[in-house]
Amino acid sequence: MADTPTQPLDGDPAARVLVAGASGFTGALAAQLVWRHPRLELAAITSRSDAGTRLDRLYPRYRVPLELTELDLDSLEGVDAAIVAYPHGAAAPTVAALHERGVVVADLSADFRLRDAATYERWYGSHGAPDLFGTAVYGLAELYREQLRGAALAAIPGCYPTASLLALAPLAERGLLSDVVVCAMQGTSGYGRSSDDIVHFSAMTENAFPYKTEGHRHRPEIEQELAALGSEAPVAFVPHLLPLDQGELATCFARLSEPLGGEELQSIYRERYDGEPFVHALEGPPNLRAVRDTNECHVHATVEERGGVFAFSAIDNIWKGASSQAIQCLNLMLGLEETEGLT
Amino acid sequence: MADTPTQPLDGDPAARVLVAGASGFTGALAAQLVWRHPRLELAAITSRSDAGTRLDRLYPRYRVPLELTELDLDSLEGVDAAIVAYPHGAAAPTVAALHERGVVVADLSADFRLRDAATYERWYGSHGAPDLFGTAVYGLAELYREQLRGAALAAIPGCYPTASLLALAPLAERGLLSDVVVCAMQGTSGYGRSSDDIVHFSAMTENAFPYKTEGHRHRPEIEQELAALGSEAPVAFVPHLLPLDQGELATCFARLSEPLGGEELQSIYRERYDGEPFVHALEGPPNLRAVRDTNECHVHATVEERGGVFAFSAIDNIWKGASSQAIQCLNLMLGLEETEGLT
Amino acid sequence: MADTPTQPLDGDPAARVLVAGASGFTGALAAQLVWRHPRLELAAITSRSDAGTRLDRLYPRYRVPLELTELDLDSLEGVDAAIVAYPHGAAAPTVAALHERGVVVADLSADFRLRDAATYERWYGSHGAPDLFGTAVYGLAELYREQLRGAALAAIPGCYPTASLLALAPLAERGLLSDVVVCAMQGTSGYGRSSDDIVHFSAMTENAFPYKTEGHRHRPEIEQELAALGSEAPVAFVPHLLPLDQGELATCFARLSEPLGGEELQSIYRERYDGEPFVHALEGPPNLRAVRDTNECHVHATVEERGGVFAFSAIDNIWKGASSQAIQCLNLMLGLEETEGLT
Amino acid sequence: MADTPTQPLDGDPAARVLVAGASGFTGALAAQLVWRHPRLELAAITSRSDAGTRLDRLYPRYRVPLELTELDLDSLEGVDAAIVAYPHGAAAPTVAALHERGVVVADLSADFRLRDAATYERWYGSHGAPDLFGTAVYGLAELYREQLRGAALAAIPGCYPTASLLALAPLAERGLLSDVVVCAMQGTSGYGRSSDDIVHFSAMTENAFPYKTEGHRHRPEIEQELAALGSEAPVAFVPHLLPLDQGELATCFARLSEPLGGEELQSIYRERYDGEPFVHALEGPPNLRAVRDTNECHVHATVEERGGVFAFSAIDNIWKGASSQAIQCLNLMLGLEETEGLT
Repeated sequence: MADTPTQPLDGDPAARVLVAGASGFTGALAAQLVWRHPRLELAAITSRSDAGTRLDRLYPRYRVPLELTELDLDSLEGVDAAIVAYPHGAAAPTVAALHERGVVVADLSADFRLRDAATYERWYGSHGAPDLFGTAVYGLAELYREQLRGAALAAIPGCYPTASLLALAPLAERGLLSDVVVCAMQGTSGYGRSSDDIVHFSAMTENAFPYKTEGHRHRPEIEQELAALGSEAPVAFVPHLLPLDQGELATCFARLSEPLGGEELQSIYRERYDGEPFVHALEGPPNLRAVRDTNECHVHATVEERGGVFAFSAIDNIWKGASSQAIQCLNLMLGLEETEGLT
Repeated sequence: MADTPTQPLDGDPAARVLVAGASGFTGALAAQLVWRHPRLELAAITSRSDAGTRLDRLYPRYRVPLELTELDLDSLEGVDAAIVAYPHGAAAPTVAALHERGVVVADLSADFRLRDAATYERWYGSHGAPDLFGTAVYGLAELYREQLRGAALAAIPGCYPTASLLALAPLAERGLLSDVVVCAMQGTSGYGRSSDDIVHFSAMTENAFPYKTEGHRHRPEIEQELAALGSEAPVAFVPHLLPLDQGELATCFARLSEPLGGEELQSIYRERYDGEPFVHALEGPPNLRAVRDTNECHVHATVEERGGVFAFSAIDNIWKGASSQAIQCLNLMLGLEETEGLT
Repeated sequence: MADTPTQPLDGDPAARVLVAGASGFTGALAAQLVWRHPRLELAAITSRSDAGTRLDRLYPRYRVPLELTELDLDSLEGVDAAIVAYPHGAAAPTVAALHERGVVVADLSADFRLRDAATYERWYGSHGAPDLFGTAVYGLAELYREQLRGAALAAIPGCYPTASLLALAPLAERGLLSDVVVCAMQGTSGYGRSSDDIVHFSAMTENAFPYKTEGHRHRPEIEQELAALGSEAPVAFVPHLLPLDQGELATCFARLSEPLGGEELQSIYRERYDGEPFVHALEGPPNLRAVRDTNECHVHATVEERGGVFAFSAIDNIWKGASSQAIQCLNLMLGLEETEGLT
Repeated sequence: MADTPTQPLDGDPAARVLVAGASGFTGALAAQLVWRHPRLELAAITSRSDAGTRLDRLYPRYRVPLELTELDLDSLEGVDAAIVAYPHGAAAPTVAALHERGVVVADLSADFRLRDAATYERWYGSHGAPDLFGTAVYGLAELYREQLRGAALAAIPGCYPTASLLALAPLAERGLLSDVVVCAMQGTSGYGRSSDDIVHFSAMTENAFPYKTEGHRHRPEIEQELAALGSEAPVAFVPHLLPLDQGELATCFARLSEPLGGEELQSIYRERYDGEPFVHALEGPPNLRAVRDTNECHVHATVEERGGVFAFSAIDNIWKGASSQAIQCLNLMLGLEETEGLT
């Protein structure tokens, strides 16, 4: 490992990409995905807390031999696009600054996902770039593919809305949802590179629990998107933490406005996702291992005995629920093949 | 470990207890709990598959130095009570034979839990002891304490009904439940000592998934007991397998027939379980580690933003969800202190 | 959980015990073990970082409903004994102050384990209570039982020396060891309640690695005690971190000064530990699950094909490797049954 | 997933490869690696126990949409090479039959690794293809690269010898090893797709233990290869099972025939592996996560305080310790780039 390897590219890069906040779990993975992307060049990786450290020291399993630096908005020459992996609230001003300088941005924070300012403020506080608020495309390619092509700013949804929406979209689009309960579960990578006692291996092994049971800020985001699809349904949402690293399972219960048979339900899902490169409607329940380290989402729906519907989805929370989804969106925003660098 | 230790008892035993089917996960734990019980003597442990093996070879963490033998119904002299840990269907004839010989029985199978014969047959097939069907006391001391005192036969509920019912009972008893969704999760010990690929460590680590999504036989049992408590509510039920050994989490969503405030809800739970030796209403969400290796159940309820209620409970699936619950019931059936041997 | 339960004691307590540093993993367990001890009363639990918090909020699985307070050396009235769970270096002055006030002390730190001042300084820096240095009894009851009876100060060994010494003592005592290699492995509780990235569940799951490969301060301690037993053997020592919570495995390779047959070896181990309440010589290799949450040590030795010996031992690193071992020692120091509160 | 995807190849395949025994852990991974290889075409996958099942049903995380069939030695037309993933003993006759028919074979079993017939018989019983015994190239490209080029039969070493030999080779080649102790640890995938109680998640989580402590058949294989490299050193070997899926750690202690300084030692390792595509000499201890799902081996060596050397290596036991190593060898045997399909 004496020499710094150079990034293996297929000819000239289509774009040079900055990853801001690359020392956290999702930022580091985003850097890794850009590094191994055949058409994107990793221009720089930045971090306040770990500037000066090489990323492959921090995350040996990612093979990115670049040093983290502090973000300097005045030396962005040659940077075409950015993935911003900052905490909610901190992201908005940086996203705005990059946007202003003509950089195409995929933002992993929640700052541009909501479209109602009051709702944003209730859950996240005052917004750091109000002029830009409401202008981003929601970064779920399966729902907003055409809008993402050529877009300048995408708000990449996190793992909970991604999993929930992909599980429910086929029903929401038909206006069938009247009432939704989402029981969501994710691994500890979703908790971030936190030093909280709660994610100490000794606390988490052989453990599992619900959290934020008083109300979760992803609920209004899921409701916003279900309404946009055609179903104004109230959503009850509760997340759980599981003793595993990468993975997000959404078990969604829905009451429908008109009854569906089991066969019919399955064929709605099959048809909806037929041709989607990353979403697969399975014949049985999904599991997390099958999607780990992929941009895939596995969904399955079934009519339960009392007339409701269970819709399940499984994703890797830091891949399809964050970083690889950002790449999928960037591919569309930059005019590349949607699947490039992701298979 | 040269000599076989004798069981440490406080004076003469109150009863001599047989554990039938002691080579499985719940039977072995039941044997261990009788062994360490100050008032119960472990009369014999039986197993078809592992007869001839000492239980502490099979489960070194349990310190029961007795040999498993084949059950012989003709030599039950001196046996006062039995815990039967047989599979559903196989249990009924043995339970009936023991009952006939005057042995007090705590049955861990589902064979005597349901009270409607047609429902039993639909989910489990024909019943092996129809005369006894419907005569058992449901073995949840928090709901049937008085009936259990002196009872001759108890049908110990499994982990899913135990966790769901303790989470929902305070609302069910007031007739408040109109609609219930149970999203339940359990560890791999709930899958039994199976050789199925699915519980191989390599398959289960970093994995989680729903299963039996087409309908689960614990649903009618939960509905039966909620109705008995006062709420004829339809229940949608879906179980999940988690990458941990012992633990069962029930996340229950309920629509109420009349609205409750958050404070009111909490005080209903506090009051309901005040004085219960094993059930505690927490101020925040429960977790599995806090109840592992105990007979406790931790519950918590909260009003969610769209007007429903989330009620959570956590138990150890093979303790309160099976074997230690059998001891709790036996204590009542035999006239002992309910908590004896369990603290 | 409305009322603070009082500690269940068998009559008057034999001693009132303070646990200093009770917010860390080993201190909290020590508090729990005193709390459930039939003859010891938990006088107070102290912590600088978490003063004001109830211990059962910090560690729900321990049921100690007391509040952590700041240690006040001027109000120790009625305190007969203390378990000190401070970091190395920080412990010595507090241990000295308690000792001066007539409090019997079981110290979990390394500050009083070594008997050579230069060695201490090399590995830990200057000593905080040089007058007391070298005066403690080494807190391994299986080796120093008589010296511990009535002793005023015991230096409780950590998990690595405990496991290594119990694995090797039968050979060391006969002067048979000429050369030792210890490959030790422990779970993440041994890393303490650290906020280090390394023990984040996401970093540790599906991982394992050696650490401190340049030299570990437990090596001279192991060598000191082997020499005291009769074998001046050099020890090569390397620790590993495993993806589990509680457990410590010592795989020790030894070259002997004279050859032993397999039978002979086994009988040496059997005889040595015959009658020991907590150490058991098994007929086959030990495992961690069988000793979890116990004060037991399981050992096994075998002659390997090239003439060396493998000696294995398994303990729970925070029980026999720390807190329950402190209770075992305190029992002897206070004139109680050695096994009291530990079975 | 309606249509069976076809394998994505770069132009015409260089060879058509059969994987025999593709329903086990290593066979399934070998199939997956051939499937995603740009120059090898997956001709067929066979299994006795699971014939008729599609591989991606058995292992959803591998995306091989082919059906397992029974091996028919009479219809091998167009098959250029084979990876045989049979148990020891069962492999030899099939390997011989394939070899006879001109198929290039990478054998994952132990049947052709040893070169001394008596040693083979002692550990494995009588050999199923004595004529072929001793003719295979040992499939460790880092030691036998030139011999593998164009070879017709390679005996791929398992994870224990692979990890141990790569850790020790730099010293063995200089004739420096006089005495070796290997403390090896692997995850549960190394145990195979067994139905043994021991690998049930409930038995393995929070557990770890040594096994085969009376002598392990990989010891003579490691000694054979160290001698071939230049050091006739006795090896004491003991394996451990860890609570993780994929990973193998070898902690090797060596006494040297002449002393080495720490710097010198590190530079020997750096130089030895400089230019190796898959083996990296790290500056600090290796860990399993960094090599998971890769063909890499990370090594590190350090002089310990009593004059010995610790040499560590980490691999993924079913990748570099089995299936990806087979691909690396096949690449050389078939005249392809050694790294093709592995990066």
